[in-house]
Amino acid sequence: MLNFISAENVSRQELENLFSIADDIKENRQKYSKALNGYVIATIFFEPSTRTRLSFESAILRLGAGLISTENALENASAKKGESLEDTIKIIQGYADMIIIRHHENDSSQRAVKVAKVPIINAGAGGGEHPTQALLDVYTIREQKGKVDGTQIAIMGDLKYGRTAHSLIKLLSLYDNIKIYGFSVKGLELPLQYKEFLKEKHIEYIERSSLDEIPSDIDFIYQTRVQMERLEDKGLKIEPIILNKENFARFSNHTYILHPLPRVDEISTELDDDYRSLYFHQAHNGVPTRMALIYSLMRDYYNLNPKI
Amino acid sequence: MLNFISAENVSRQELENLFSIADDIKENRQKYSKALNGYVIATIFFEPSTRTRLSFESAILRLGAGLISTENALENASAKKGESLEDTIKIIQGYADMIIIRHHENDSSQRAVKVAKVPIINAGAGGGEHPTQALLDVYTIREQKGKVDGTQIAIMGDLKYGRTAHSLIKLLSLYDNIKIYGFSVKGLELPLQYKEFLKEKHIEYIERSSLDEIPSDIDFIYQTRVQMERLEDKGLKIEPIILNKENFARFSNHTYILHPLPRVDEISTELDDDYRSLYFHQAHNGVPTRMALIYSLMRDYYNLNPKI
Amino acid sequence: MLNFISAENVSRQELENLFSIADDIKENRQKYSKALNGYVIATIFFEPSTRTRLSFESAILRLGAGLISTENALENASAKKGESLEDTIKIIQGYADMIIIRHHENDSSQRAVKVAKVPIINAGAGGGEHPTQALLDVYTIREQKGKVDGTQIAIMGDLKYGRTAHSLIKLLSLYDNIKIYGFSVKGLELPLQYKEFLKEKHIEYIERSSLDEIPSDIDFIYQTRVQMERLEDKGLKIEPIILNKENFARFSNHTYILHPLPRVDEISTELDDDYRSLYFHQAHNGVPTRMALIYSLMRDYYNLNPKI
Repeated sequence: MLNFISAENVSRQELENLFSIADDIKENRQKYSKALNGYVIATIFFEPSTRTRLSFESAILRLGAGLISTENALENASAKKGESLEDTIKIIQGYADMIIIRHHENDSSQRAVKVAKVPIINAGAGGGEHPTQALLDVYTIREQKGKVDGTQIAIMGDLKYGRTAHSLIKLLSLYDNIKIYGFSVKGLELPLQYKEFLKEKHIEYIERSSLDEIPSDIDFIYQTRVQMERLEDKGLKIEPIILNKENFARFSNHTYILHPLPRVDEISTELDDDYRSLYFHQAHNGVPTRMALIYSLMRDYYNLNPKI
Repeated sequence: MLNFISAENVSRQELENLFSIADDIKENRQKYSKALNGYVIATIFFEPSTRTRLSFESAILRLGAGLISTENALENASAKKGESLEDTIKIIQGYADMIIIRHHENDSSQRAVKVAKVPIINAGAGGGEHPTQALLDVYTIREQKGKVDGTQIAIMGDLKYGRTAHSLIKLLSLYDNIKIYGFSVKGLELPLQYKEFLKEKHIEYIERSSLDEIPSDIDFIYQTRVQMERLEDKGLKIEPIILNKENFARFSNHTYILHPLPRVDEISTELDDDYRSLYFHQAHNGVPTRMALIYSLMRDYYNLNPKI
Repeated sequence: MLNFISAENVSRQELENLFSIADDIKENRQKYSKALNGYVIATIFFEPSTRTRLSFESAILRLGAGLISTENALENASAKKGESLEDTIKIIQGYADMIIIRHHENDSSQRAVKVAKVPIINAGAGGGEHPTQALLDVYTIREQKGKVDGTQIAIMGDLKYGRTAHSLIKLLSLYDNIKIYGFSVKGLELPLQYKEFLKEKHIEYIERSSLDEIPSDIDFIYQTRVQMERLEDKGLKIEPIILNKENFARFSNHTYILHPLPRVDEISTELDDDYRSLYFHQAHNGVPTRMALIYSLMRDYYNLNPKI
């Protein structure tokens, strides 16, 4: 792997390799603390996202690399003077040995890769993909369940604009015997293209219209926030789906709750102390999985001594 | 000490310990340069403050820790999508081993500490406390006078909204024989609660309405900026108090001028070269005192080898 | 050299020394990777400029120094509360061992140097100078041509507001047998003061009004962007000069294209793959030249061990 820009081009083996490195990082953090000494990595965010940016930056520093960063490239940048994304990439790659980019256009990472001579990681592209979120989601599933094959998961909330849901579906499709229940806010159903993708991959996708219709012994409930800022139909009346102590009560003691965060109120805070609420732990998994990804791409690209 | 969120919960002994470490840092800077190698510290500023942020960040780097930072968390963050402060803290603590937070709400640090599993430092909370400013203020007094006991100080300017004045009063109350003169801009007098606090602590507080009524051999004049941005009565006509060469002339050769900065024009620049003008030196003391604080909290929390 | 604030006060010998260090850095990057360990450098940008800032920050990190940074000092800072530039410098120099400043006022760096006790680098001052851009421009000329003496160069585009053109002219004036062709957008001719400066220095300056009048075997074409944001006459109708495959065809195989970037459309992207298009390589030279400058100033100021 030379870049990481989409959940689509990843193989199961590549995923498993990344997960093994992430496991090792969790157990032997010290071992990696100087792995990228002498390298500089840039985080270029055209769309602000404190959480994703800080997660990447923590990963960069914990690998011993130097960090250059812009938290609002659109407002503060050459972009304002009319520079193209391609030019930005061709310049920044002279300053940094890897570029991590978030951009408001769906095809931004593909365009970046086309001109780049350093590895590129997609940290979120408009309403399109956010593949490292899917990476940490699947890693958390694997960590909790012991494996990903056979996972039964209910994806709730905004299945239309929620790009994390889309990337998750793509990564899960690499595994066997996956079963997905979709329970969306009315008007925010899973787009047809994803339904067809799942059919092609022979993954069972079952649409539900109430929480009660989700099997109570399901492995995971993946709740998502309604992406109000992306709604095209501004008049759409949102009937939110809220997960709380009461309606979660019927689920089994091995049904775990995931959420890509940030949360607004679609998971009641009263559930935060429940041992089955994995969402903060899931967010924390962003650091070892992104460390694994960065380390792995840098190692392959720069032929780093594989002593680690 | 596990957190540093208020000047109220600090003991005299804890202060003295921090000051001793700051002394040592000043003399043996090299000794501390790798003290926090391998750790990552986050500065999360919901209210921009270049000066305070850079002071903390210099301290972090001089201790050898990695730094992740956001200079405008409110505009650029998950906060905009509706995330609570509590959730932000619970996520960031997976990325960083300590969180330094500035926020526009008075109780923000208390709320952060309630959910946090890493040490928290309050870098300024709305109109409330700014305890590390008081820390460096008292450190500068101690450094100049040789001790804090017996300090006579005039606090001038905005005693109503000036949170640095409030935090300073609290820390000074830990010492013996403190005498405070208050000379405020009309309408910006010290709030009743602080007057009562001083009475309780048996500290003499003397209100004055002109500079001429301040004893000419007082130890320190602590001038402050009127916090125009916090004025509730927007119609209040401010009659500024300006310290200049002329009205400072009657003070003794051991009367030193302090100011938390930034200054607008309440201290005339003609005083900058006077050896009794300590305010820039005071600002510089922000680095060793914050290094001492960060180091001390990290050492206690992570059981660092006390080789230093 | 203790500061670098203008292309005017630099000697040919100083330039050559910097270029030699830059050469060495390019060949022995590893040698410099810890040169400034233990030092902290601040980048204070009152005017945003992602490219210049990241180039400096990459240089700082590749020298092993710590980095504190503000990407929008004007909006986020004490400046908003009314602090003077002089006060900002006098405070920041307590946090950092060198200050790199970009500011919207032409005399900002001069003012900074007047109060500073640490080295200052001018990273761009309003419509005035941007001397490190000229540094990397001349370095690129020297690298490509083998020497700077005898260079024939056409400077095109915005010769009125383009501060990089002005700084370049000043640095080139240190060399012998320089010949400059000026071909500006109508209304954006080189200001009289620079024409007189060139006359004084006995440098031939030839004004041209079409690309065809530039000798086809000239060494370099230095194209620039029209600084739309600085135009005083907002009604001026700009007739852009665009360099493309067609009109570049008549130039020799040793005529190289330079541009300070960012580019809008004044160089057609169809020229990007031509081996004579040096502008991205030129931008990348920003890192070794700025490393050389930072290292050199720090070495002289702090009497660093000249082992390197």
